[in-house]
Amino acid sequence: MITLASDFGTPYPAAMKGVILRRCDARLVDIAHDFPRQDVRTAAFWLSHVLVEFPPAVHLVVVDPGVGTDRAALAVRAGEHVLIGPDNGVLVPPARALAASTEVYEIDAGDPRSSTFHGRDVFAPAAAEIHETGVEGLSKLDWLTPTTAHTELTFPEPDITDDGGVGEVLVVDGFGNVVTNLPGDLLGGVDRITVNCTEVPVVESYAHVESGGAVTTVGSHGNVELAVNRGRGDEVFGLAVGDAVELGR
Amino acid sequence: MITLASDFGTPYPAAMKGVILRRCDARLVDIAHDFPRQDVRTAAFWLSHVLVEFPPAVHLVVVDPGVGTDRAALAVRAGEHVLIGPDNGVLVPPARALAASTEVYEIDAGDPRSSTFHGRDVFAPAAAEIHETGVEGLSKLDWLTPTTAHTELTFPEPDITDDGGVGEVLVVDGFGNVVTNLPGDLLGGVDRITVNCTEVPVVESYAHVESGGAVTTVGSHGNVELAVNRGRGDEVFGLAVGDAVELGR
Amino acid sequence: MITLASDFGTPYPAAMKGVILRRCDARLVDIAHDFPRQDVRTAAFWLSHVLVEFPPAVHLVVVDPGVGTDRAALAVRAGEHVLIGPDNGVLVPPARALAASTEVYEIDAGDPRSSTFHGRDVFAPAAAEIHETGVEGLSKLDWLTPTTAHTELTFPEPDITDDGGVGEVLVVDGFGNVVTNLPGDLLGGVDRITVNCTEVPVVESYAHVESGGAVTTVGSHGNVELAVNRGRGDEVFGLAVGDAVELGR
Repeated sequence: MITLASDFGTPYPAAMKGVILRRCDARLVDIAHDFPRQDVRTAAFWLSHVLVEFPPAVHLVVVDPGVGTDRAALAVRAGEHVLIGPDNGVLVPPARALAASTEVYEIDAGDPRSSTFHGRDVFAPAAAEIHETGVEGLSKLDWLTPTTAHTELTFPEPDITDDGGVGEVLVVDGFGNVVTNLPGDLLGGVDRITVNCTEVPVVESYAHVESGGAVTTVGSHGNVELAVNRGRGDEVFGLAVGDAVELGR
Repeated sequence: MITLASDFGTPYPAAMKGVILRRCDARLVDIAHDFPRQDVRTAAFWLSHVLVEFPPAVHLVVVDPGVGTDRAALAVRAGEHVLIGPDNGVLVPPARALAASTEVYEIDAGDPRSSTFHGRDVFAPAAAEIHETGVEGLSKLDWLTPTTAHTELTFPEPDITDDGGVGEVLVVDGFGNVVTNLPGDLLGGVDRITVNCTEVPVVESYAHVESGGAVTTVGSHGNVELAVNRGRGDEVFGLAVGDAVELGR
Repeated sequence: MITLASDFGTPYPAAMKGVILRRCDARLVDIAHDFPRQDVRTAAFWLSHVLVEFPPAVHLVVVDPGVGTDRAALAVRAGEHVLIGPDNGVLVPPARALAASTEVYEIDAGDPRSSTFHGRDVFAPAAAEIHETGVEGLSKLDWLTPTTAHTELTFPEPDITDDGGVGEVLVVDGFGNVVTNLPGDLLGGVDRITVNCTEVPVVESYAHVESGGAVTTVGSHGNVELAVNRGRGDEVFGLAVGDAVELGR
């Protein structure tokens, strides 16, 4: 199984699929191809929550604003999974979510056919060959070199206090739900909480308040989420990615 | 085969696919994940027209504004098909389109991992297990209980008169074509008809008039459709979902 | 393997998939379903660059503004590939990219179920049957008739001069990168070039200039591309499909 994720829209992902399917018969599963363009952090967040649901697979990740520069191409082993993509941090959070320890290899890309589409010309062929070789064979591929140098990416840690915490918005999903870096257990045992000084009900899910009502809840990723029943939390709370969120009990 | 339909956008459907693929090897086919958010009726309309094209399959349908409340989770047998999703009516029209009679089961969801993403935590695991069990084994799954109580959903019936009819707009497709609940045979035998008092040609297909010309035709679902050749019918006719449409011969 | 491409958005492509999967067990791969609506030339451009990446396959292409008129339905053999779609030129550039010579057949569509959705009612069944028959069996299918008459589609040729060339914009991709019909070798051996009289650096890839900087580069299709690092080339260059582009060395 090979999963594919990118900020490509269409039809570039199909070119990657063609390249793979000329080389192997893997099942292909799309994760998303509409990640915000060149937004490495948002892609990393979603991938760290979605890829853990999968059985062992090769995960092709191409959010690659540095394509064609000297940024390295990586293959990262995380347990029985292998992630393949550019060395810009996008592989780090999902790899850590998949396994406690990881092995990082630099891909010798040779002289790629293009300087602007390494998804097609470097990463897709690597994914197909690694799929065929299997995770145990990684160390035998002569175009992979173990490396310890790679770009880090971590999400900001919240400040937890006795009566709440201060964090920030990590992503906003397609419903407008605002996902923060504040741990869901901050909402335990209370019916209401203040969000940036406004009191909001704490509920199990969106429809526990009337339509249009603002809520805080524990999202499916385990973090505090700010939402509006049948509406957009980002608009009602006036929050965007990177904004501060202060919870007070 | 398991089909997947939702209002999730990305990347939530991929999480459901991971959950399924850890449990079974089913072929997965996306129906749509961009149904208007929380719009149960529109999803039900499209599913009632699309799922009938498929061979026997498990159909996972997650348009679920009531997620995390006490709304039931259902599995509905319709002939050799099984539909899985929330009890809000979304499964009813496609189930009726697939089979003359249906069997409805309530899913015992246990204590799901989240209250906000039952697509991943309730419906996807149920779909995988039902796929493995097969439609004949439904009655033996101890987490399914036959039920007769479930939420209804029917589309409004048009008023048919001797010289036309009054109906309403059910959906507008991505081309801007306006799909009504008026039966296509209202257009039989005439070259022109009035739509809300404006005369419009009756044609076999869009390109039978000049570019930009408004037409009525029988859409692929068999209903009267209002369209504009190479343009948007919804804009030219000034119609949106729920608006009244009066046809006069 | 059957690939699917259209301007349908959702959920119409799923109806085509259901029709195919009732008839055969082919692997299905989506190319794109968000081609600009009724824009035959743009679809043809992308398909001519993407389909060549695939192993032998049946390619279902439905960008079909003339559906339901007397435009023919075609199956085109190109090497080990077969393209299926309307006779409006959309199949011509990808067929030529796939093979030096092609065989064109007209499909006898009989009396299709609808006049507005031949993707479901004509092309998808034809794709499934041709997939099962195989490319060598095309000439034996009694609903295919060899033909030499079909609609042409060629892209405009640029004017190449001693010190540059004049071409036009063929497509703009989702990143805003402007793809021209000017051959990439026009950029060889120079560091800067004028684009419509403004000097711009010639680079190997986008990130070789600062964020927001305009560049010219050789795109993944081999043509001259006008882009902006982490920005939109179409907006900064003020160019849209069909606009003239003059390069001067």
